[in-house]
Amino acid sequence: MANENVNTEAQAAEKKRGGWNRKKTPKTSESREAAIAKNNKLAAALAGKGTMKAELARRAGKAQKPENSVRVSFLGGLNEIGKNLTMYETDNDIVLVDCGMAFPGEEMPGIDLVIPDFTYLEKNHEKVRGVVLTHGHEDHIGGLPYLLKKLNVPVYGTRLTLGLVENKLREHGILERSSLNVVKAGQMVNFGTIQVEFIHVNHSIPDAVGFGIHTPAGTIVMTGDFKIDTTPIEGEMIDLGRFAELGRKGVLALMSDSTNSERPGYTASERTVGGSFDTLFQRAQKDRIIIATFASNIHRVQQIINCAEKYGRKVALSGRSMINVMTMAMELGYLHVPDGLLIDINALNRYTKEQVVLITTGSQGEPMSALSRMASGDHRRVEVGPGDFIIISANPIPGNEKTVSKVINGLMKLGCHVVYESMYEVHVSGHACQGETKILMGLTKPKYYIPVHGEQKHLQKSAEIARSMGIPQENIFIGNIGNTLELTADSMKQVEDVPAGRVLVDGLGVGDVGSVVLRDRKHLAEDGLLVIVCTIDAMSGSIASGPDIVSRGFVYVRESESLMNEVRETAANTIRQCLEENFHDWSTMKAKTKDAVSRLIFESTKRDPMILPILMEV
Amino acid sequence: MANENVNTEAQAAEKKRGGWNRKKTPKTSESREAAIAKNNKLAAALAGKGTMKAELARRAGKAQKPENSVRVSFLGGLNEIGKNLTMYETDNDIVLVDCGMAFPGEEMPGIDLVIPDFTYLEKNHEKVRGVVLTHGHEDHIGGLPYLLKKLNVPVYGTRLTLGLVENKLREHGILERSSLNVVKAGQMVNFGTIQVEFIHVNHSIPDAVGFGIHTPAGTIVMTGDFKIDTTPIEGEMIDLGRFAELGRKGVLALMSDSTNSERPGYTASERTVGGSFDTLFQRAQKDRIIIATFASNIHRVQQIINCAEKYGRKVALSGRSMINVMTMAMELGYLHVPDGLLIDINALNRYTKEQVVLITTGSQGEPMSALSRMASGDHRRVEVGPGDFIIISANPIPGNEKTVSKVINGLMKLGCHVVYESMYEVHVSGHACQGETKILMGLTKPKYYIPVHGEQKHLQKSAEIARSMGIPQENIFIGNIGNTLELTADSMKQVEDVPAGRVLVDGLGVGDVGSVVLRDRKHLAEDGLLVIVCTIDAMSGSIASGPDIVSRGFVYVRESESLMNEVRETAANTIRQCLEENFHDWSTMKAKTKDAVSRLIFESTKRDPMILPILMEV
Repeated sequence: MANENVNTEAQAAEKKRGGWNRKKTPKTSESREAAIAKNNKLAAALAGKGTMKAELARRAGKAQKPENSVRVSFLGGLNEIGKNLTMYETDNDIVLVDCGMAFPGEEMPGIDLVIPDFTYLEKNHEKVRGVVLTHGHEDHIGGLPYLLKKLNVPVYGTRLTLGLVENKLREHGILERSSLNVVKAGQMVNFGTIQVEFIHVNHSIPDAVGFGIHTPAGTIVMTGDFKIDTTPIEGEMIDLGRFAELGRKGVLALMSDSTNSERPGYTASERTVGGSFDTLFQRAQKDRIIIATFASNIHRVQQIINCAEKYGRKVALSGRSMINVMTMAMELGYLHVPDGLLIDINALNRYTKEQVVLITTGSQGEPMSALSRMASGDHRRVEVGPGDFIIISANPIPGNEKTVSKVINGLMKLGCHVVYESMYEVHVSGHACQGETKILMGLTKPKYYIPVHGEQKHLQKSAEIARSMGIPQENIFIGNIGNTLELTADSMKQVEDVPAGRVLVDGLGVGDVGSVVLRDRKHLAEDGLLVIVCTIDAMSGSIASGPDIVSRGFVYVRESESLMNEVRETAANTIRQCLEENFHDWSTMKAKTKDAVSRLIFESTKRDPMILPILMEV
Repeated sequence: MANENVNTEAQAAEKKRGGWNRKKTPKTSESREAAIAKNNKLAAALAGKGTMKAELARRAGKAQKPENSVRVSFLGGLNEIGKNLTMYETDNDIVLVDCGMAFPGEEMPGIDLVIPDFTYLEKNHEKVRGVVLTHGHEDHIGGLPYLLKKLNVPVYGTRLTLGLVENKLREHGILERSSLNVVKAGQMVNFGTIQVEFIHVNHSIPDAVGFGIHTPAGTIVMTGDFKIDTTPIEGEMIDLGRFAELGRKGVLALMSDSTNSERPGYTASERTVGGSFDTLFQRAQKDRIIIATFASNIHRVQQIINCAEKYGRKVALSGRSMINVMTMAMELGYLHVPDGLLIDINALNRYTKEQVVLITTGSQGEPMSALSRMASGDHRRVEVGPGDFIIISANPIPGNEKTVSKVINGLMKLGCHVVYESMYEVHVSGHACQGETKILMGLTKPKYYIPVHGEQKHLQKSAEIARSMGIPQENIFIGNIGNTLELTADSMKQVEDVPAGRVLVDGLGVGDVGSVVLRDRKHLAEDGLLVIVCTIDAMSGSIASGPDIVSRGFVYVRESESLMNEVRETAANTIRQCLEENFHDWSTMKAKTKDAVSRLIFESTKRDPMILPILMEV
């Protein structure tokens, strides 16, 4: 790892909570600029090589790349929420930004997670210099173990981000052989022709950064997931100063978080949630307080802990990820817990209700989470009911509305008091609204704008914001995964796509479940299955045994005996007729049996189960 | 049908759009009161019988019913959105209010719809006098064909409601033998000991009513789904005057729509949407306008038609239910379309984009709907792209957020301009917010309050509103389906439940898919299936053929040949071993094969497909 520019520990220590970032010395900026200048020289030198290469490529019949160019490919994160992975490629080097996962949709039953397609990276593995990470959320780091298993490249991220990555790699058994490199906001990492500068941003997880990516074509700014929090719980406000400096020097392109681009105004500070907690802790009076939130939202948990301390309550944690992340956050100094405040969940019953707060996972209604189990009355250690004051400190992620409602309804039925509306501001977003996006655009003044991290509606709204800020339509690119842009100092054009898509992870299998398997799963789920087994005597060409009918997920068989008998008879008649005609043509025999049974079933039930005829020869 | 009190046609004609309902003559009210008095006398007479019956019941060991009581059972609609069905029972009579369906949840793959359990009604069919309907939405009438197939009882509803019911019964082939009786708001229907008075309310479908249910115990008011619309598109404001009159005479219990009980304030008038349409029609300029909304929202469609007329555009309809409902609404006089305004969808291309409006179904992103097909580019007649201005005039029903987003994203990718946010007020709810609920409570002044039509969180919030209006906690009942209340003039107590639940409809099957079948479907959906077939020679006790392995929805077999070979070998070894030990014990043989293969597969894939061992004997 090359640290061209490192803030001293002393400087870091000077940075105070919520204060303006005035402590940065001019020297810091200068050394940044020096580093960039050096990079540009390097880039210029390498560009020569590039030209030679391009010439060779042209002779080989390939399209020529312009001098001092960079290619940006989107391997994930466009037209989807999740599996963010952006590739920067020069003639010599490939640098990757993030490597996330996506949660499977309803149309992917049984799938555990979805990761990007790494085909292009595997083919060009000798060029891949490393992965830089913006922050530690799953949609930015969740695909990393799968990438590193194929390409053991160095990883660069802030301390907390790498702490979360470490847990992941340990689970996958590849921590030892991985190269994890801690980088601080303000530092720069050199990848040959590309240098990546880490810039502090605010988000719903600490230690998040955006990037200034210095390429032979110019500087490209990626905000990463961000918001502007003027009063963060810990650490500083987003380093708007540095974004402004880059803007002054000239930003070739900006890629900004589009998640909240539909929302006008500004996202509220994380600190507002603390005020709501204070009010609710007072309202809870003698009740036990249970708060569900995201395990990664360390500042949220910090505020709960601060409130608990103020009101003299002990704090217990519930949920594996909550315990894991908070343990690490305490070790790394991101979470500050007064001595004796934390108690084990098993010790909860030694206190009265008014003496405790339980912080738990399950704010999205995940069926196996701690809160869901409490709501359905089968949590092993925590039984809830009247006298429990439950706060769901999160909004449902689109698609989770029903599971969250189910948990709320369950808790209420048990007699709990549940706070879940936005009326108390028990949650704020971690993403920039329109106002913040405009500030970033206004500071960086990019020539080109590329909205990222969102569905089509988010990307289009983000582009609309850019147009309102004076960026001409032709300088805005709304892309799709696989799309590749070639940028020079004064041009941006779309070139040929790279392979991109979704790779499904199911258990240990990565990519072995594809569209055929999913189609079958869907069919089985909707109409169930009917297996018809028959043994044929190969000598006589007659039925030796069967046909037997086995069904699953179709009808309750005991109540449908007459239908099953009809099916058996129809199958037997069809097979016999086929045997008389030509008993060697088994595929016709199977097809005819399937058709006959399928017709019978549809006529009598208007259903279409999967029918599997299996013929055995003896 | 007994019409104790009928407004004359002349009176009905006097009622003007949006005006105050001042035309009601005192006579109308008097005759209502007379009818109630008569009813009460009848009830008193019958109560004598009731006492005798109760005496007999007591001798037979049953609990005694108090005199002049009524039992109210909830067969659906509590702790769920949908399948509303409420039963009123006296010693002699059963009257049903609504008979709805619910849409199946994610946990019910392949299920078409869910209806209430009619067991209790079938057992007591000789007492069931009829069904009264509040309005024509699926969650209030969708279960009716299934009920009428079991119990051919008369049905009472307003003209539009019965028009919608007719279509349904025709599809089920039972229209001819059904008894449908049109009742107007203001009229009363006599069911022996129970009389039901129809009271006009506002909702997102015309011709909606609430009920004054006059029982031996007193008057119970059911609002049905309602809102207060002071400026409805057609017809009058909700008949608050009648609710007030009932309140003055004394309301025993109120059951109110809880859907929007979480929302403070008042639901906006349907008319506000018309204002938004006007603005958007101007903004659309030379674009083709496509508006998606609910087929049942006739007033919404009326406003679109009014706007189209104003801006000189022709109107085409798309989607089977849209065409069916609007055709009926025009025939019955609920929708007024100027001559020559409507064009066939096939004629769309004969006009320029600025000359037309297309009204379509699919506002919930239903995969097979017209709008979804436009968004995915496979609508047979309508191709959309730049130059199309699309308005989604509906909010996603909880659970549909993702499918709606998918449609919006698809339309935007094709280049359409899509308006879908609430910023233009292109949709208003049909349900009462907190303010309207309070008005109804304030007017009816019920002794008891029972929130209905909602999930637990809605019911509890509605109860909270009742408490804030001064109804004591002990007079409020939050129930569950199956619960039964026994009410007298001065008491309300919960008595034994009646059977209630959900009956799943899958194709022609009603109730033949239960929890076992659903569990199997879920298992098949998540992990797929592995069938192991083996033929055993009954004489020698050896394998005659196989084992053969067939898998579906598990892995892509061609890429997993070695795993399949291992499975085959493991199965063969296990079967051989079992045959050596005791080849008659087939169930053990199956279980051992299943276990061995299951273990092998879990170890090598961390998956758990359904394993079906099938042994055949020759």
